[in-house]
Amino acid sequence: MDLAVWRANVNNQTVTTEPVPESWQRLAGRALIPRILLDEIPPMCDPLGPFNKLLFAPGLLVGHMLSSCDRISVGAKSPLTGGVKEANAGGTTGLKLVHLGIKALIIEGAPAGNGWLLLHLSQEGGRFELADDVTGLGIEESAARLRERYGDKVGIALIGPAGEMMMASAGIQNLDKDGSPARIAARGGLGAVMGSKRLKAIIIDMPDYKAPPLADEALYKDAKKRYMKSLTSHPQTKVYSDYGTSAVATMCNGFGAIPVNNFSVGQFDSIDKISGDNLRDTILERGGDGDTSHACMPGCVIRSSNCFADPEGKKITTPLEYETIGLVGSNLGIDSFDTIAKLNQEMNDLGVDTIEMGAALGVAADAGLMEFGDGERAMELLQEVRQGTPLGRILGQGATTVGKVYSIRRVPAVKGQAISAYDPRAIKGTGVTYATSPQGADHTAGLTIRAKVDHLDPMAQVEVSRTAQFNMAGYDTLGACVFSGFGYATAPGAIRDLIRGQYGWDIGEDALQALGRETLALERAFNKAAGFTAADDRLPEWMTTEPLPPTNAVFDVPAEELDRVFD
Amino acid sequence: MDLAVWRANVNNQTVTTEPVPESWQRLAGRALIPRILLDEIPPMCDPLGPFNKLLFAPGLLVGHMLSSCDRISVGAKSPLTGGVKEANAGGTTGLKLVHLGIKALIIEGAPAGNGWLLLHLSQEGGRFELADDVTGLGIEESAARLRERYGDKVGIALIGPAGEMMMASAGIQNLDKDGSPARIAARGGLGAVMGSKRLKAIIIDMPDYKAPPLADEALYKDAKKRYMKSLTSHPQTKVYSDYGTSAVATMCNGFGAIPVNNFSVGQFDSIDKISGDNLRDTILERGGDGDTSHACMPGCVIRSSNCFADPEGKKITTPLEYETIGLVGSNLGIDSFDTIAKLNQEMNDLGVDTIEMGAALGVAADAGLMEFGDGERAMELLQEVRQGTPLGRILGQGATTVGKVYSIRRVPAVKGQAISAYDPRAIKGTGVTYATSPQGADHTAGLTIRAKVDHLDPMAQVEVSRTAQFNMAGYDTLGACVFSGFGYATAPGAIRDLIRGQYGWDIGEDALQALGRETLALERAFNKAAGFTAADDRLPEWMTTEPLPPTNAVFDVPAEELDRVFD
Repeated sequence: MDLAVWRANVNNQTVTTEPVPESWQRLAGRALIPRILLDEIPPMCDPLGPFNKLLFAPGLLVGHMLSSCDRISVGAKSPLTGGVKEANAGGTTGLKLVHLGIKALIIEGAPAGNGWLLLHLSQEGGRFELADDVTGLGIEESAARLRERYGDKVGIALIGPAGEMMMASAGIQNLDKDGSPARIAARGGLGAVMGSKRLKAIIIDMPDYKAPPLADEALYKDAKKRYMKSLTSHPQTKVYSDYGTSAVATMCNGFGAIPVNNFSVGQFDSIDKISGDNLRDTILERGGDGDTSHACMPGCVIRSSNCFADPEGKKITTPLEYETIGLVGSNLGIDSFDTIAKLNQEMNDLGVDTIEMGAALGVAADAGLMEFGDGERAMELLQEVRQGTPLGRILGQGATTVGKVYSIRRVPAVKGQAISAYDPRAIKGTGVTYATSPQGADHTAGLTIRAKVDHLDPMAQVEVSRTAQFNMAGYDTLGACVFSGFGYATAPGAIRDLIRGQYGWDIGEDALQALGRETLALERAFNKAAGFTAADDRLPEWMTTEPLPPTNAVFDVPAEELDRVFD
Repeated sequence: MDLAVWRANVNNQTVTTEPVPESWQRLAGRALIPRILLDEIPPMCDPLGPFNKLLFAPGLLVGHMLSSCDRISVGAKSPLTGGVKEANAGGTTGLKLVHLGIKALIIEGAPAGNGWLLLHLSQEGGRFELADDVTGLGIEESAARLRERYGDKVGIALIGPAGEMMMASAGIQNLDKDGSPARIAARGGLGAVMGSKRLKAIIIDMPDYKAPPLADEALYKDAKKRYMKSLTSHPQTKVYSDYGTSAVATMCNGFGAIPVNNFSVGQFDSIDKISGDNLRDTILERGGDGDTSHACMPGCVIRSSNCFADPEGKKITTPLEYETIGLVGSNLGIDSFDTIAKLNQEMNDLGVDTIEMGAALGVAADAGLMEFGDGERAMELLQEVRQGTPLGRILGQGATTVGKVYSIRRVPAVKGQAISAYDPRAIKGTGVTYATSPQGADHTAGLTIRAKVDHLDPMAQVEVSRTAQFNMAGYDTLGACVFSGFGYATAPGAIRDLIRGQYGWDIGEDALQALGRETLALERAFNKAAGFTAADDRLPEWMTTEPLPPTNAVFDVPAEELDRVFD
């Protein structure tokens, strides 16, 4: 079975398939996004206009239920950053697209009318249907109705009210392995691009398991075995299995780098209340729907996701991750998991990125629109988003727009995208990543918190960030979760042999870094063509002058250092 | 008397004077702005932050009450465009600054507290005072109180509520020769920069007339005589004296280039109701405070300004200009001078650019926030601006922000700044100016409507725009009103001889174009350092695809043509 390109045009509502062009064949996932954008859209085009395209591209390793390696990359020119955007998610979307034989799904054109569409993909091909009965509904209700109509075996990628309103904080939600619409390709406003195409949801109706063929089955299986052994025996796998990403809260707080009250402080007085320990204890104690170790993709052995239940054991939200705890919790001065979980669920249902919305609310607090610590007011503000009031529209466009509208300088964002829950003044390597990643501020583009380096030393960060950025771009191209790295890092040659085993390509020991380098070169080429310069590779000015308690660090990595990251 | 640089620091509230650096001496007005910015601010700095500086620089010829040549250039890094900004105004500010011996006034630093300041300049030097008693007041009331306190001989440059709220549509108002605060340095959000310095007003307490010395008085006087003769005998001087800028409405409508309903149509059904003829007839018929021919600067013989009175003869606003008639009138589907004048006066009192706010309201109408033609709703929206509600904040940030918040693609703006009342699809040379001017979209940067060219021919515009841009940058550097050009154009050598006569400089016959070329080179250097690229030198995508009735033209000047304007 050769993979193919599926092309869906929302204007004339046709879906066609075509062979994969030569120059796309060795690319996949995150690497394929900028290649397609460079080949098919004017780099300076309006992100919400007819020339932008919304892309779904499973990673290189997707299709085999190899643990943690079935992620879907979604991409477009970003309405948030104006540059290239790839956001990836777990769940079942990637797996089912590959099983349908799809290397890349390209959604293009401008909608002719005012109605809303569904795109239905199956072994019979693709077709458009009307989506008016789910328009305006939240993610949960929309997904429930669609699963009722199309069956609970389908994969679904869909947008919520925020995406319909083309808000730049809107992501694209995907069903997890249990059918819950909780795996969001969150960042960069891809939900707004989907909304601009007036596409409410994509149904992937593929119940069969059709893994792609292997060029060298023995080699693949041997590599898989080594990877799995390494992964399952790695101590961090157990940590993430037990605590999920929330384990990072205490660590980040220790470095003085957790965001508090719109990034004004780096340590949180109530850190124990939002720690990984307390999260695990609370979930276990409450029982019921709560789950401390939940897999988002079939076959994942790490199971870093979770489900948070209320005191009666009824699910509030899944997942509750560190980024949300940081941005929606400490960053808003909120220390109650119940409050954070409710805000998280509301954001999931709106279909917005919790990082972007948490940061937007933090800036809003600085603008006097809420008090830090007031979870009820935060929930009211999310209702404004749902209703599309002027204030809700401002918030829905993300942190940079809140700052712009209220002339607030203290906006934690780079290239228009909000900074994640690691203050770059105290973890400067991650600051280098925020500044220089073509994606805008994004910890998943190259987090450095585990690097063996003095995080406060401005001159020690460039190599650390570069390595992390190449690695992460490599994993994103493979379709591999970052935590698969615990396995790959201690199974030399496994990535090379998995690729050789599946594709028969001649690829070297440095496969991961090579893939990452290639991906970043493509992304930077797109951004350059879109008008980006070194001026865009900077942290916000106030972070270079305003000391962050308790380290009182400022971001002082010199511009020349930033400019040599990709030289 | 040697001119000096006055430097006012809002942080420590000191005012110092210093000699003019060698490299600034032959620059003035618009040309001096980018030179100072390049020398003194980080080009990538936050426009509303402590590193930006607000500059006042009178033009080269200012100080002699030479007709129409006493304009003040105000500049900073623009919060609207992110690039260099110069906006100039008539009135008395330029004249009085030069009489005080000021080559450039540099306002710098970040305010320490939350109070508001006044800057008082006189022959005793400069000092800061508290401005709390005028804070929050509109321009009219603020100016009246300040004139009461400091006497009606002072010059004043001040901001209104919009500037205090750091809205990017805010300009800086200046008193006209009759003491009316009606001459706004409108564009690019300079009022917001002044607001970020917490400076409500600058009082220029200089009752004496101290014109700068002349190097060759005989040559200067002869050149002045030739210029004045040429100016007074030019037929257009009479047209502008009789009709002001409103004469352009019918002409622009004839080309199918007047903005109607957010730039969706290029001819206005009710053009006769907003024509120059009807404006003149209405003003003359009503009498009272109305005035069809009003000078904004002492000594001006063109007197293109006006005063519009209500049916009882009571002043509604001064001036009522074509740009406002286009952007606040036809662009909003409003055809009543009374309504336009009331909206104009409200905007003047808020201290906002009527072009930017008219365009913002047009986009707001496309977003469903008002109906085209509904002047009452437009006035309500301006009350939202005054009150600083979420909706008011959105509008106050200008057209691009309205489009951003509401995800509206049909935004008439370049580099974040609204397009003036000449649709670039039907006057393509002006479109080239909008696209390529370092100032963002701005007809005063190089209007081409009078050029002898087929305005619809995409390949005939580059030279026309370039010449217009150099000329305009030249006039702005001289401190000369564009309409002085009627005189200079037919008095060969007058500009050269005025400069030689005043300064004794060796300057050639092409003085105007040479000054303009130098100015634009400096401005482009600043923008480049701030991160601008060719991607910024483009009209909005929708104007390249959406035909404009009745010509059904799109903007189709190729990118390669735009990129060779300054090659």
